[in-house]
Amino acid sequence: MLGYFGPAGTFTHQALRTISAEDAVAFASVREALEAVREGQLLGAVVPIENSVEGGVSATLDELIAGEPLAIRREIVIAVEFGLYVRPGTQLHEVREVLTHGHAAAQCRDWLALMVPQATVTEAGSTAGAAAEVARPESRYDAAVCARVAGQLYGLTELAYQIEDNPGAVTRFVEVGLAGSVPERTGADKTTLVAYMREDHAGALLEILEQFAVRGVNLSRIESRPTKTTLGSYCFSIDVEGHLDDKRVAEALEGLHRVCPRVHFLGSYPRADGRRPAVGYGSTDEEFDAAAEWVASLGG
Amino acid sequence: MLGYFGPAGTFTHQALRTISAEDAVAFASVREALEAVREGQLLGAVVPIENSVEGGVSATLDELIAGEPLAIRREIVIAVEFGLYVRPGTQLHEVREVLTHGHAAAQCRDWLALMVPQATVTEAGSTAGAAAEVARPESRYDAAVCARVAGQLYGLTELAYQIEDNPGAVTRFVEVGLAGSVPERTGADKTTLVAYMREDHAGALLEILEQFAVRGVNLSRIESRPTKTTLGSYCFSIDVEGHLDDKRVAEALEGLHRVCPRVHFLGSYPRADGRRPAVGYGSTDEEFDAAAEWVASLGG
Amino acid sequence: MLGYFGPAGTFTHQALRTISAEDAVAFASVREALEAVREGQLLGAVVPIENSVEGGVSATLDELIAGEPLAIRREIVIAVEFGLYVRPGTQLHEVREVLTHGHAAAQCRDWLALMVPQATVTEAGSTAGAAAEVARPESRYDAAVCARVAGQLYGLTELAYQIEDNPGAVTRFVEVGLAGSVPERTGADKTTLVAYMREDHAGALLEILEQFAVRGVNLSRIESRPTKTTLGSYCFSIDVEGHLDDKRVAEALEGLHRVCPRVHFLGSYPRADGRRPAVGYGSTDEEFDAAAEWVASLGG
Amino acid sequence: MLGYFGPAGTFTHQALRTISAEDAVAFASVREALEAVREGQLLGAVVPIENSVEGGVSATLDELIAGEPLAIRREIVIAVEFGLYVRPGTQLHEVREVLTHGHAAAQCRDWLALMVPQATVTEAGSTAGAAAEVARPESRYDAAVCARVAGQLYGLTELAYQIEDNPGAVTRFVEVGLAGSVPERTGADKTTLVAYMREDHAGALLEILEQFAVRGVNLSRIESRPTKTTLGSYCFSIDVEGHLDDKRVAEALEGLHRVCPRVHFLGSYPRADGRRPAVGYGSTDEEFDAAAEWVASLGG
Repeated sequence: MLGYFGPAGTFTHQALRTISAEDAVAFASVREALEAVREGQLLGAVVPIENSVEGGVSATLDELIAGEPLAIRREIVIAVEFGLYVRPGTQLHEVREVLTHGHAAAQCRDWLALMVPQATVTEAGSTAGAAAEVARPESRYDAAVCARVAGQLYGLTELAYQIEDNPGAVTRFVEVGLAGSVPERTGADKTTLVAYMREDHAGALLEILEQFAVRGVNLSRIESRPTKTTLGSYCFSIDVEGHLDDKRVAEALEGLHRVCPRVHFLGSYPRADGRRPAVGYGSTDEEFDAAAEWVASLGG
Repeated sequence: MLGYFGPAGTFTHQALRTISAEDAVAFASVREALEAVREGQLLGAVVPIENSVEGGVSATLDELIAGEPLAIRREIVIAVEFGLYVRPGTQLHEVREVLTHGHAAAQCRDWLALMVPQATVTEAGSTAGAAAEVARPESRYDAAVCARVAGQLYGLTELAYQIEDNPGAVTRFVEVGLAGSVPERTGADKTTLVAYMREDHAGALLEILEQFAVRGVNLSRIESRPTKTTLGSYCFSIDVEGHLDDKRVAEALEGLHRVCPRVHFLGSYPRADGRRPAVGYGSTDEEFDAAAEWVASLGG
Repeated sequence: MLGYFGPAGTFTHQALRTISAEDAVAFASVREALEAVREGQLLGAVVPIENSVEGGVSATLDELIAGEPLAIRREIVIAVEFGLYVRPGTQLHEVREVLTHGHAAAQCRDWLALMVPQATVTEAGSTAGAAAEVARPESRYDAAVCARVAGQLYGLTELAYQIEDNPGAVTRFVEVGLAGSVPERTGADKTTLVAYMREDHAGALLEILEQFAVRGVNLSRIESRPTKTTLGSYCFSIDVEGHLDDKRVAEALEGLHRVCPRVHFLGSYPRADGRRPAVGYGSTDEEFDAAAEWVASLGG
Repeated sequence: MLGYFGPAGTFTHQALRTISAEDAVAFASVREALEAVREGQLLGAVVPIENSVEGGVSATLDELIAGEPLAIRREIVIAVEFGLYVRPGTQLHEVREVLTHGHAAAQCRDWLALMVPQATVTEAGSTAGAAAEVARPESRYDAAVCARVAGQLYGLTELAYQIEDNPGAVTRFVEVGLAGSVPERTGADKTTLVAYMREDHAGALLEILEQFAVRGVNLSRIESRPTKTTLGSYCFSIDVEGHLDDKRVAEALEGLHRVCPRVHFLGSYPRADGRRPAVGYGSTDEEFDAAAEWVASLGG
């Protein structure tokens, strides 16, 4: 069984449903969901990995590193789309009290002002909680701004969809399992890791990045984060294009292992967008093999 | 007058009060606060610049870049500390209904389980909103978990403080004003900028970082962010140690201007921690001056 | 008056005659020629700057650095072409004794074996000296292999020209004058310098080269040379594409001055081949000016 | 049997005698000596590898690359020391005619002016040839300036030794054999190679050097040389500290093989000075093994 960072009706829940139609368990925090994976209660858990209305990459990365090794095994990208949901029978012009999370309210401000100018917007703890509240027949709220999954979950009627003022936003989630079995290489993969730097000097980050550059490995995300132990010390959370089974990635990881005091491998997994990586000059597996053969031949 | 990303009683409000005792205006979003600065209604605004319970760096950086030039002119670091606040007269053992934001609930879970095991925790839209609700005499909630500033604001009694399970966390805020006047160099400054890369190739980030490294400029934060226009294209949000008036910083900015299609300067300002920067070998103002004099002398 | 590293009739002499038809003074060593420039006896001197049959770059660079500042002000490239020269009246089939320098003998071995198989080859101290000896009516040598300038100088008859086995070789010479007046920028210039490294560590050379790379300055020659003072310590003799008056070159020189314990500027001067430099992205003077203006505008 | 770049009595001959007391064959050029190795007539040959009075690194490197693979298997460093040699019985005050090579004359000029002011100095094709000439009883020359090995070879008497004006100079030679058997690692080794760059752009050399730097491999010599085929195209002749059997060196060679259109491995061999290399952080064989084991463990 899979788990997820709940409650039901959130975008995380929606992400989970794109990969599994089976029942899944909601957890109150990323930590609790991941602990359940570590303890073997779950086969995996879906958690947010990017800033979004419901949580951030930091918490998830911290939790991934914090205990028994876990690894990301899938990436899921979800469009951030909101709708206006009411109890069956309510008409748009009857909506006077809207309940939603503050972020959702901010993202739909213009639409709400235009389409339900008569309504007051109240902030709830989550968009899913807002839907749950609106679903109660005796609720004093007429409508919730929430994800479609929440509207469906609570039997609400969709009066409008894609009401966000700036359409096109997406957010990312990952499915996490126990470390030790890496999904097969697809040719369009990502690898996530955290590398700690040795010292705080101009150029420490360069030393880390050169380990990738000289092997033709492209980065698709980097984020520095202060380490908790030493003042002015950092680690770097990094996504690279490629898979542990790509020789250029494996050799770059070896290089990091040598020059960094600590490196966490957080998984190689298929990219949600299926985009194949840019591979630096001379960095295919075939070129790695040819180079190794040449060097082996030199000794006679 | 100053503004801030409200509502009153948040950590952002608390950050604002560390720099000004005067009345200030709360705004419902970072965007609205910054727009008021742009329009001249405010002298400045305090907004969050780091992931925290109330918002994230991304939204703020996006807004800083989005319109008329604004610049950061001060950094404010606040300890993330929660307390348990009740209406005057309520005792700890009487607390049955606790209201707070989900993040605060997660961060105080152990303490709440140990000290108010009898209580149910309900999520509100914000910790400040929870305090406001608890302050109503007829509220069905007995206690709020919130920042001290919220407890004080709503006339609540503090039953406990520093109840977070992992003490020591801090979060950062910035005071933002119109661009064009940079605070004086103090010797312990930061400069924030956003640099766009030319192409998506292994090594593009290296090219940007070398502009800093060769001038002995140290980074204290870096974060890649996808640009909205081009698939696979990134920009980098960067904090460096030093001030626009440090010659090594100015020359590095010139270098970025030449190699990047776009660079946003988001301000030079005193660091909250007063820590003086590590300056790379040969990178003091005196050494820049001596080098310029030497080169000028070569032409005869 | 100009001087040159003699004797008369060498390729250096030939190089000198490409820039001046006036009388010039031959010196027995590069050192003596340069000393005469330092002492004001000469306006300039022509000396070899590249490995050739007559001398090497090392000696010349050592001498340039050794005393009062001198600077290169012109580059001269000469084709390394030999001929067979005899006293007027001698026929090819009569040549039994050939005199020449060992390097010239080696470079014309195949031709000599084919065309004058009956001849014995004896080594002289220089090709010019060989021509002088052959010019003596009573000489026991019938022919000299030497540069055309030597054949002409000593009134010899050219029996064959371009007799070298591998045609196309060139060698370089420079005209040197007192430092302090740099020839005007032509747009196709070179700058020569010697930079000393701080320490013997993996990456010291990288630090030096990055000073050029980040400013889009291209190298056209680099040679490491052990310094005489410290075991394992090096300096780098470097030619870059561009002129002291190119802003990218000037800023790179400033950078070197800051990170190296010692830098010698040995001149900016027109390239012999007139080839215009590759200029890195964003590195024209206009882009340097635009960047400086942008940074100047940030302070308000 | 070994061969060497002759004639007998040169510094190259002296270098050969430091490694072998047996008879050896002198060749008139580096090319002929190396061809004899290629054709199996010799077990090896000693040739100059550094600018010296008798030849240059360029010719030797060109020849090493030119045909069937050869490899350097030993480095020999010789002090450049000259003496004044006469036929037995000649006194210093009787020396009126000195014969020597022009470079030797230049290097001993001050001593000769001080100690044999009455003498005329004539240039010969080589110092060894000068000794041979002086050894003839009927020679009109009284003394030769040459290496001690030449004085001994021709039965001359040493009137003075170490008469060079700037003592302490050394020059390097190498013993070359057929490629295919690399001398065992001693822990104080050098590896010589030639790497061709892909394109002529600012940063091409950096790309090559980073292949060494990220693996903690230190360079002890680098020299750019124009390639003969393409205008503005270069190759780099490089010595690195370490042996093909050092994992950091092997992996760097693999990296070069991938990013360069051509790489020539010219041998790993013991350093003449026995100095152990500086090894970059994290770059010992043990650290390479540990890194490879870690990466191998990630796949589960």
